Amino acid sequence: MPRRTDRRDKIGRNGKPMRNTANRNTATTQAGSRPLIADWNALMRVFIRPEDEACRTTLIKYMEQILFGLHEFLAQHVGITEDVSLKALARQFKSTAIAENPEKRLAEVIQELIREISPYGVNVASPYFVGHMTSALPFFMVHLKTIAAALNQNLVKLETSKIFSLLEKQVLAKIHRLIYRFPEQFYCDHVQNPETTLGSFVEGGTTANITALWVARNTFFAPRNDFAGIEADGSAAAFAEYGVKRAVILVSRRGHYSLRKAGGILGIGNKNIVAIDVDKEHRLDIGCLEQTIADIRKQGDTAIVAVVGIAGATETGAVDPLRKIGELCAREKLFFHVDAAWGGPTILSDTHRHLLDGIELADSVTIDGHKQFYMPMSCGMVYFKNPHIMDAVAYHANYVNRHGSVDLGIRSLSGSREANSLVLDSALKIMGKKGYALLIEHGIDTARKLAEEIERRDLFEVVTWPQLNILTYRVCPAGLKEIMQTGTDEERIEAVHALNHINKTVQRIQREAGKSFVSRTTLMRRHYEKGIVVLRCVIMNPLTTMAVLNDILDEQESIFRRYFPSPPPVYPS
Amino acid sequence: MPRRTDRRDKIGRNGKPMRNTANRNTATTQAGSRPLIADWNALMRVFIRPEDEACRTTLIKYMEQILFGLHEFLAQHVGITEDVSLKALARQFKSTAIAENPEKRLAEVIQELIREISPYGVNVASPYFVGHMTSALPFFMVHLKTIAAALNQNLVKLETSKIFSLLEKQVLAKIHRLIYRFPEQFYCDHVQNPETTLGSFVEGGTTANITALWVARNTFFAPRNDFAGIEADGSAAAFAEYGVKRAVILVSRRGHYSLRKAGGILGIGNKNIVAIDVDKEHRLDIGCLEQTIADIRKQGDTAIVAVVGIAGATETGAVDPLRKIGELCAREKLFFHVDAAWGGPTILSDTHRHLLDGIELADSVTIDGHKQFYMPMSCGMVYFKNPHIMDAVAYHANYVNRHGSVDLGIRSLSGSREANSLVLDSALKIMGKKGYALLIEHGIDTARKLAEEIERRDLFEVVTWPQLNILTYRVCPAGLKEIMQTGTDEERIEAVHALNHINKTVQRIQREAGKSFVSRTTLMRRHYEKGIVVLRCVIMNPLTTMAVLNDILDEQESIFRRYFPSPPPVYPS
Repeated sequence: MPRRTDRRDKIGRNGKPMRNTANRNTATTQAGSRPLIADWNALMRVFIRPEDEACRTTLIKYMEQILFGLHEFLAQHVGITEDVSLKALARQFKSTAIAENPEKRLAEVIQELIREISPYGVNVASPYFVGHMTSALPFFMVHLKTIAAALNQNLVKLETSKIFSLLEKQVLAKIHRLIYRFPEQFYCDHVQNPETTLGSFVEGGTTANITALWVARNTFFAPRNDFAGIEADGSAAAFAEYGVKRAVILVSRRGHYSLRKAGGILGIGNKNIVAIDVDKEHRLDIGCLEQTIADIRKQGDTAIVAVVGIAGATETGAVDPLRKIGELCAREKLFFHVDAAWGGPTILSDTHRHLLDGIELADSVTIDGHKQFYMPMSCGMVYFKNPHIMDAVAYHANYVNRHGSVDLGIRSLSGSREANSLVLDSALKIMGKKGYALLIEHGIDTARKLAEEIERRDLFEVVTWPQLNILTYRVCPAGLKEIMQTGTDEERIEAVHALNHINKTVQRIQREAGKSFVSRTTLMRRHYEKGIVVLRCVIMNPLTTMAVLNDILDEQESIFRRYFPSPPPVYPS
Repeated sequence: MPRRTDRRDKIGRNGKPMRNTANRNTATTQAGSRPLIADWNALMRVFIRPEDEACRTTLIKYMEQILFGLHEFLAQHVGITEDVSLKALARQFKSTAIAENPEKRLAEVIQELIREISPYGVNVASPYFVGHMTSALPFFMVHLKTIAAALNQNLVKLETSKIFSLLEKQVLAKIHRLIYRFPEQFYCDHVQNPETTLGSFVEGGTTANITALWVARNTFFAPRNDFAGIEADGSAAAFAEYGVKRAVILVSRRGHYSLRKAGGILGIGNKNIVAIDVDKEHRLDIGCLEQTIADIRKQGDTAIVAVVGIAGATETGAVDPLRKIGELCAREKLFFHVDAAWGGPTILSDTHRHLLDGIELADSVTIDGHKQFYMPMSCGMVYFKNPHIMDAVAYHANYVNRHGSVDLGIRSLSGSREANSLVLDSALKIMGKKGYALLIEHGIDTARKLAEEIERRDLFEVVTWPQLNILTYRVCPAGLKEIMQTGTDEERIEAVHALNHINKTVQRIQREAGKSFVSRTTLMRRHYEKGIVVLRCVIMNPLTTMAVLNDILDEQESIFRRYFPSPPPVYPS
């Protein structure tokens, strides 16, 4: 493991781990020199584009600090350490007054962020940070995001974006084409058609899922006769018109919690997001889905608004049998949404695209930009097979989004939006499809090698094998492994308790040590089962090699031996 | 008016206005030199932090181009010109294939964005761009946004943000305190309390309004007896439990269209967002609101989920009588939401804060960061008086947002989110309350001066006087002005037609000329009235002086005289 500098050496002062600057509220500079005063001339200067060389040099110098000062921090820490407890940190962020005059100059703010705040952030860019779906970015992403910020276009309407609205429609069509592979003519017809919509940029996977299910709900409860549709008339009128008492959405037990949230927001009720059991690979059990649909049909008073398939479950990376679900939905005339927030970009790899076989059957697809497109926070997208279906969520106003305009805000959950499409489009040009494919392939290949390494080690066992680039495993010492295989029911329940305790402990101690970060979750396969605690690795950083992963496993082993020394430990039950 | 360089001089080539680069899909560089190939080593380089001096210099050089290349563009154009028609532009964004190998290097992408794409974007930073709520940014905002991108923290959970979650809670408390002015002890108790929530960062005003009304809906249809609440059980069960047939939200006719959208999404139905008529200053008519509430109460089967007051209507900048609405809501025990997406930051000015008198009575308040906090796209916020009320929208999962954790994603419409709070907090330190106040005061003062200037000119009339820094007016030549005052009903209807046509034409021609941008909208005061077309100015750019505004009015006068020459023109009716 590479040597890491003790953070204290770098930033500690007088024995205190961090200067209490966040509470300082004075209008003097650090040197105690002339006070800062808000005045009109100073204000004008920050709005005027710097014309003279000195000014430009200063601004560039700041940017240099940002790019490389932060890089130096990022090279050192994973950062979820307990060096300084959260409570101690929190005490430094309790002042809630806003100073009358400026507290700091830009240079001081940047210095403080780099030297005193960021070291207590989380280094998601570290190859040792394999616990969540956030990782290192190609450095050019920061440049691209800066361009978007400097242009400050607002994609809600043409009048504040113009060419960037066209560019956004183009990149939406590019990704749509990757998913659906419709003929060239389809894309010629729709790419710049103001009347149709192939997809929408949103804040993230959550709002993408909400958007998809919003469209699904409105498509089901469409206008007819005197009924103006659920969007206009509301749920109660819709249920009355369609003669239903309840609406449901069916999704694998591994579905993201945003699907329940969508159910809550949309008036469907999060209890009506029905969890379908999964098979032993944690994929939606198609038989169980079929049975559930049949049971609901029999009741007669329940609307099935959508069925959701997962392409890369958050916890296990599992991919539901998309083709089978899609075919079932076609037979049953049900709206089929695929939550590919995580797994979506797998379609960029010719080698692994088959893992998402059937995704093209989906009526809608969620894909996150800030996950496997390696874009900075926050960018999500949602795509629709039918270019007219978003008409079900169209809104107009007198000053914007007028009928027939190119304004992208007409069919969109959000209003004002930054030009994330510019970042994605540029990244695709710089990386090429193959560049992204190399990253996807590295993640999947490395996850498989990691699974093999885990199985090779006596102390561990793989819980869910990687279907994509996520896997779960747990510490499982020989004695407990044997009980799990041969013990009585009662003994096995005891053993699960013990294993859960061990794994929670190992994960927490490793996190607090601050060198590596693996996350944990609790898996329940069937609704009647007790959960088992597992460790979870997400392999997306190309710098996360097997050497790094072996370091992480070694550390876990040594934590286990330190905290659970043999001979036979007593595990709390 | 300052001389502007003809764009064609700058970027036109061989008579073609723009090189058709967007369609190029080859994997060779511009010089036709060695082809770009995606390979693992090249990929590694973009993920590794540059260690050597040459690399760092290159990265900084790119940033310099971004900061100043774009600045040069921004100094020249407003940009919604018809030099090149939208259709012609759209033809260049029709290719939908993604190249296998990289198409361009970062340097080429940046060059293309600066030289060939951005000139066809919209220069929202121009002092002559006064049509929308997007304006110049203080340059340091770009630096701050770059810091957020480089750190790439995800505020959904502590494990991907740590200190930045604490910082976010702090800045939320700072703004909450500006709005509600609770005693110091209240903020001590809540600023870092993981169990309570003073507000939430969202993508923009639309999602802020949706969040507020989501909370209002769930608060109204709260759990009781066997009913688990509307969020869990859905609208139908909620209506049954509470014995209502319909739920409504009451809002001024000037309310933002996102409120209708919120009604649609939440299952209330956008037809049930009841528009309350406005008084002659375009403020919600409090008598009309009272009457509407009384009428609804009489029916007995309709739930009033919330009343919305507007602080800075999008079209007119009008501020509803917040104190009166708040007092009425308190008497009637109704949830009171204030949409201060635009006007919110007025509370930073001691001089003008009184314009938002009563805002502290609101149960929830929407404020946009990317409007009068001068932050880059996109950042919205929503605040709640009661720090526990967001429990009504809490979600947990097994791997994140666990019960009792500090994870900010527990109570939030969105999931993964960038660290916009870092940008706002830093900006407050750099600007001070007074720095923002100076901007607010400039906007309001200048808008008032502009209204006086408009009234001074014979050709125009003010339609809505500025309550904040937005006003509407129209071209209204003497003859038509007289008819409007003394004509018969029939003559006045004719005159309105003519005026609408004139104003649409003047606005369009000015926009297409590309020197200035004033927007237009159609105002309807009462539901039975025909709309009148008005020109709309939003004064937020501190470089927008009266000299600039006089230029804009002069141009409108000259367009009018050119397109509608006297003697008596024939206006189409």
